[in-house]
Amino acid sequence: MDTVSTCASRVPTRPCSSMSSPGEGLAEVAVLGLLSPVVAGTTGERLTSDRSVVAAMVRAEASLVRALVRAGVAPVSAEPAAAAIADAEVDVRDLAERAVEGGNPVIPLVKVLRAAAAEESAGWVHYGATSQDILDTALMLVAGDVVRRIEAGLTRLAATLARMADEHRSLPMVARTLTQQAMPTTLGMRIAGWLAGVHDAVRSVRSCVPLPVSLGGAVGTNAAYGEHGPAVVEAFAAELDLAAPVSPWHTRRTPVIDLAGALTLAGESCGKIAADVLVTAQTEIGEVREGTGGASSVMAHKANPTQSMLVVAAARELPPLASIVSAAGAPEQERPAGAWHSEWQPLRTMLRLSAGAAERTAGLVEGLRFDPDAIARNLDHLLAALGEDPGWVVAQTEHVGLWIDRVLAQHSEVFR
Amino acid sequence: MDTVSTCASRVPTRPCSSMSSPGEGLAEVAVLGLLSPVVAGTTGERLTSDRSVVAAMVRAEASLVRALVRAGVAPVSAEPAAAAIADAEVDVRDLAERAVEGGNPVIPLVKVLRAAAAEESAGWVHYGATSQDILDTALMLVAGDVVRRIEAGLTRLAATLARMADEHRSLPMVARTLTQQAMPTTLGMRIAGWLAGVHDAVRSVRSCVPLPVSLGGAVGTNAAYGEHGPAVVEAFAAELDLAAPVSPWHTRRTPVIDLAGALTLAGESCGKIAADVLVTAQTEIGEVREGTGGASSVMAHKANPTQSMLVVAAARELPPLASIVSAAGAPEQERPAGAWHSEWQPLRTMLRLSAGAAERTAGLVEGLRFDPDAIARNLDHLLAALGEDPGWVVAQTEHVGLWIDRVLAQHSEVFR
Amino acid sequence: MDTVSTCASRVPTRPCSSMSSPGEGLAEVAVLGLLSPVVAGTTGERLTSDRSVVAAMVRAEASLVRALVRAGVAPVSAEPAAAAIADAEVDVRDLAERAVEGGNPVIPLVKVLRAAAAEESAGWVHYGATSQDILDTALMLVAGDVVRRIEAGLTRLAATLARMADEHRSLPMVARTLTQQAMPTTLGMRIAGWLAGVHDAVRSVRSCVPLPVSLGGAVGTNAAYGEHGPAVVEAFAAELDLAAPVSPWHTRRTPVIDLAGALTLAGESCGKIAADVLVTAQTEIGEVREGTGGASSVMAHKANPTQSMLVVAAARELPPLASIVSAAGAPEQERPAGAWHSEWQPLRTMLRLSAGAAERTAGLVEGLRFDPDAIARNLDHLLAALGEDPGWVVAQTEHVGLWIDRVLAQHSEVFR
Amino acid sequence: MDTVSTCASRVPTRPCSSMSSPGEGLAEVAVLGLLSPVVAGTTGERLTSDRSVVAAMVRAEASLVRALVRAGVAPVSAEPAAAAIADAEVDVRDLAERAVEGGNPVIPLVKVLRAAAAEESAGWVHYGATSQDILDTALMLVAGDVVRRIEAGLTRLAATLARMADEHRSLPMVARTLTQQAMPTTLGMRIAGWLAGVHDAVRSVRSCVPLPVSLGGAVGTNAAYGEHGPAVVEAFAAELDLAAPVSPWHTRRTPVIDLAGALTLAGESCGKIAADVLVTAQTEIGEVREGTGGASSVMAHKANPTQSMLVVAAARELPPLASIVSAAGAPEQERPAGAWHSEWQPLRTMLRLSAGAAERTAGLVEGLRFDPDAIARNLDHLLAALGEDPGWVVAQTEHVGLWIDRVLAQHSEVFR
Repeated sequence: MDTVSTCASRVPTRPCSSMSSPGEGLAEVAVLGLLSPVVAGTTGERLTSDRSVVAAMVRAEASLVRALVRAGVAPVSAEPAAAAIADAEVDVRDLAERAVEGGNPVIPLVKVLRAAAAEESAGWVHYGATSQDILDTALMLVAGDVVRRIEAGLTRLAATLARMADEHRSLPMVARTLTQQAMPTTLGMRIAGWLAGVHDAVRSVRSCVPLPVSLGGAVGTNAAYGEHGPAVVEAFAAELDLAAPVSPWHTRRTPVIDLAGALTLAGESCGKIAADVLVTAQTEIGEVREGTGGASSVMAHKANPTQSMLVVAAARELPPLASIVSAAGAPEQERPAGAWHSEWQPLRTMLRLSAGAAERTAGLVEGLRFDPDAIARNLDHLLAALGEDPGWVVAQTEHVGLWIDRVLAQHSEVFR
Repeated sequence: MDTVSTCASRVPTRPCSSMSSPGEGLAEVAVLGLLSPVVAGTTGERLTSDRSVVAAMVRAEASLVRALVRAGVAPVSAEPAAAAIADAEVDVRDLAERAVEGGNPVIPLVKVLRAAAAEESAGWVHYGATSQDILDTALMLVAGDVVRRIEAGLTRLAATLARMADEHRSLPMVARTLTQQAMPTTLGMRIAGWLAGVHDAVRSVRSCVPLPVSLGGAVGTNAAYGEHGPAVVEAFAAELDLAAPVSPWHTRRTPVIDLAGALTLAGESCGKIAADVLVTAQTEIGEVREGTGGASSVMAHKANPTQSMLVVAAARELPPLASIVSAAGAPEQERPAGAWHSEWQPLRTMLRLSAGAAERTAGLVEGLRFDPDAIARNLDHLLAALGEDPGWVVAQTEHVGLWIDRVLAQHSEVFR
Repeated sequence: MDTVSTCASRVPTRPCSSMSSPGEGLAEVAVLGLLSPVVAGTTGERLTSDRSVVAAMVRAEASLVRALVRAGVAPVSAEPAAAAIADAEVDVRDLAERAVEGGNPVIPLVKVLRAAAAEESAGWVHYGATSQDILDTALMLVAGDVVRRIEAGLTRLAATLARMADEHRSLPMVARTLTQQAMPTTLGMRIAGWLAGVHDAVRSVRSCVPLPVSLGGAVGTNAAYGEHGPAVVEAFAAELDLAAPVSPWHTRRTPVIDLAGALTLAGESCGKIAADVLVTAQTEIGEVREGTGGASSVMAHKANPTQSMLVVAAARELPPLASIVSAAGAPEQERPAGAWHSEWQPLRTMLRLSAGAAERTAGLVEGLRFDPDAIARNLDHLLAALGEDPGWVVAQTEHVGLWIDRVLAQHSEVFR
Repeated sequence: MDTVSTCASRVPTRPCSSMSSPGEGLAEVAVLGLLSPVVAGTTGERLTSDRSVVAAMVRAEASLVRALVRAGVAPVSAEPAAAAIADAEVDVRDLAERAVEGGNPVIPLVKVLRAAAAEESAGWVHYGATSQDILDTALMLVAGDVVRRIEAGLTRLAATLARMADEHRSLPMVARTLTQQAMPTTLGMRIAGWLAGVHDAVRSVRSCVPLPVSLGGAVGTNAAYGEHGPAVVEAFAAELDLAAPVSPWHTRRTPVIDLAGALTLAGESCGKIAADVLVTAQTEIGEVREGTGGASSVMAHKANPTQSMLVVAAARELPPLASIVSAAGAPEQERPAGAWHSEWQPLRTMLRLSAGAAERTAGLVEGLRFDPDAIARNLDHLLAALGEDPGWVVAQTEHVGLWIDRVLAQHSEVFR
């Protein structure tokens, strides 16, 4: 009997003793991060787990009840249903399995929540809403949490980079184009380029929030709320600290498309840094090492740039996942048959990969150890090839500070 | 008794009381199918869980020990290590978390397995192998199991379609092109088209198996095995009922690219059927209903074609996921830094989606209920538009049986 | 007179008799829109032709000379080179063929342009620049032109939609979810949803412009300009009416990634409209027809919704193309070997598809002919199914105007 | 007046004197390879030009007339129409522009061809066919030509690789994993890995041909041919040296999905080689150079691996393009509204990229110049790191010949 796994599926957790055999079933189906080391153990993983999504759906339903009361649609006597919902015991795996019949997990959830509410107020649970309202709102709640984590990770990353760009502004090194040693640059100049990319990503993820609640009712008219439609939506948004959309967005998928774009950009901005680490960490170049060398299962002498590798892997996965989300952006009618459903899992995976990349890259950059000797040696090679001397390097890189300072000025502006 | 699979889930088996925090941790991170109803509860989900992947890795390591003995590389006294490995208790989540440092879960797994083996034979565990050997082999084991399920699902689906194509071969109905009623066809002719697509998918998934073991050692030379390299690889393949590759394929990704192609084709062949059900199940057309009507959270009068919708969603997700796998098909050097790692999760997701689509479509088709009245009514509309009479319909569809019979003959060939 | 654009096509202007083989060669290789009817004949096609790209490259080189003079890097005597460049005769196909050796068309172009300049000023042509500077700047010029066309197309589209949303605000019709008749909405409410999507797209494309010039020199340091680097870049941007970036963006691809995102969103916002037209134009639903019925090669009775179909096709192509561009967003070192090159053709194709979709959708919507009888008939069907009467429809849709007005208010804000 | 470009659009070419102003228009819209150097100037470019596609459509229409006669559907007196069609003058750009109205270029083409036929046989032109039959068949003709070129390119490539793998079988070199020097291999062993990948690609492209004709008539029933349907299809296939499908495949897209898969695999097998060249051609590694060094626009000392870079760019573009094609693999009804149309341009682009990659890689590999000193120097570095001596290298690589020979044996089998 695997009681722990069973407990794992409860939101919130109740005493273990009351749970039993399903545990084995859970162990048999669970995905626990094994094939996604860029994600495993990160905050983003926890924020996007099935339990977190269920918790967000429950929160959405509870907030809807409160919003109905606040907007004058439901009587004050309905309000206790909100608290009852929030305390309901929900079995995540059970929802997942029962989602198959109707095609989404909200349908069985509503049954559970109505049962948890007092009989007289049960009718106000999910009142006037459709499944898509709750699931989209829940995903926006989850996404908002993750986006804030990504911003935090990128902010931490940017702070490190700003310091490094300044510190190494005059350390000359080889710049390489099309795989070849090309001309000199400075380490600070390269890092300033990384930083400018992170600035772009920060601005992009910031521009996504606050994400909007979804509330349109059966066909996006909020008919059940009569003249109070906009008021209910505004109250719902206020309850959840989300934005109120101009109109229901069941089939106007801009929020998720823009989100997917920002997540991709964040991943690529990290991927750029990781890609450069990978190249310059090569044995023959040797200009940098990761702080925590990656172990090999068979070769002790290697110092694998493992974290960079995982970030690059994430940067490779994000764009096609974003294409799934974007391709769902022309959904037919008032609710499409398939397009909407195809967004869920890719969007969640994107949130995880992007957050994982931001968190890992922040750690990666903090640990980087540059090797000044290797940097100098490689530069000497370039000088020899060109028949130039160190004075020429100084001349070539004398004014990179102008660009570094522009990026640092932007840094102050982005994070003022 | 397959203790390995059981143990693989031992994300603890101890009494619940002592396990509070890790249990909670698992609940916090687990993905349990909530956002993928096409997958939840299917066999493919179970076959591709993290536990199943760990079990396959363990099986690969155990088989490698046996192969080493069989090929004369390891002494017979090493053989008990294989059984010891198979009995080892492996904590899936722990592996996932420890995979972060080295970038893959095999590194920590080998430590666990060596500790499980007797000291004198521990050295033969993972002997001469690299992490990629074990993980790729494990994924091929898992994929092989799933592919067989997909073939079974498609076979069941094809059998139903063959019967239906024959049964309805002369039932006239409207064919539609570019959304418009066009000319008559028969229901059997349309279904024969579905069937031919499933035949293609069956051939495609069959052509992927047996998938190859991966065994190349640190850099793909199998140096540790000396002159016995090919013999070890052949024995390893024989132990696992997989194929022996012409040479190590660490950076020749044809097996996974072809697999991704077959999984996509299987998904699309199901998606075609589902797409047709969606169109003809529309209220205004009404020619077909799913056997188990999809409930709506708010509208009781609707009969949502839920299963078709889920299959279509899977068919939308598969091609971009395949593009991640294919894009990893030009990996640099003897092991790439990122490309290989980017394959794992998309490949697993593809296996699940394709298997889920096959299983659900088989069920969907078995339950389809055609409405002859609606079919006739829509056809009358076409006749009226064209000023034709029923005799003309007969003339137009008189010879579709020639094509249906060609497809049925192919059916006998595919499944002889 | 814009001699450059004209000359750019001078893929010869000499008498036909002497040109047999090259002319024949061009015919043999040219792509002229045959397989992309959503693009053929549109302004976007012309703006993105190879000739337009060459003209933009020439314009960039000429502007660089002027910027060098303006920033005090080059002597005033260099300025005539700008005019000489602008008048140079450039053979587009010859450039394309000579691009193969060095991997980009700028290398041969510079040779042609230097030859066109007076000997004493030829050295200032392309001074301090690298191929990527010129090609990226040229693509930004082209993209800027196309983005303005897309904005114009979407503006025209939005104006029509705003009028229609208001006009049909109270016309009741069936809303459909998951293929099924669900509940009533109004035609105006549906169109307001389209309009809100177009607003999003307008904001998105606007936020991309002005696009930045690219100018970093060999390795992104602008070393050749010494202390004048920022001044040259600012002057270069001013000459071209583009923005000056915070620092060289050779390997910080945010401008193209964001552009690809906006182009995709524009395409999907049109695709949503087209998708709805396709569904409701179905013979059995018949609520709308395109103004110019699509001919069938064999079936005269059909009224194919051809323009919608082409727009939907564009919306399907855009997301994966964007994924190519995004995936180039983590380029290694100071110029990557492959990633940058993989952007060019997909980006151009995206510009064409998005502009074509905007132009065609504007025309499509203007020509839409709704059929009030069909709309009413379908609604009656829903009423019958629900056992409701027309009064109920009024009650259900009574307050949709609240949402329509919110969208129209947004319209005034977006286009004030 | 740009008469040459005008001539360029005629199929076949007629005297120039009769052509006039449209030339300028053509120059304004033509794509001539400027942004795709991997394609410009290759045979694949010519085989896939708009003119080639039109020529294939014309060939398909002419062959259909002959097939109708051969199958006894049309009278022998219709046969001259086939020759008349083949001689018809078709203006490519005019077709492209007129394709917009009906959504495909076959509709205007049929008008041109019927006008070219004698009045009494004009009715047999396009008899019983639909636009999709002709366009799909034309694309299969074009694709078949390109696939044969790809096979030829890969065969040439494989021959070189087989020779090189044997020649360098014992030349020790460093193998690198995850960017780090790992263990020794031999140059021959690495090349054998490349070769095995090319074998896979050869098998894959071979398995696509012969591609099938498409002939189903208006709704895929071939109703116009009565009992002769299969005979007409078989005759049509025989005329064109294509295969006869089991049944019409208007909405069973296996041929194009499989083709897209094979084109991708071919591109990736070339991309793998190019990726390895890029890494080992790096200045600091220096083990190989391309035969024809890529010029830089500003840095004379560089030897850019230009051809490898272009091949890698192609390998990056192919997978997402394939995802567009695959995503069209679940088309609704008897002809989908958008999915089919979205295939054309991506499929053509894929044919070009894959053929270009094969051709360029064959040339690239023939020109590779390995530097034995650099190879030895890098190996010495590894030995120093490991504290090993050259004898150890011999021991480590002693048996790689076993694997090389397996690959060479496969080579004999693939090309026997």
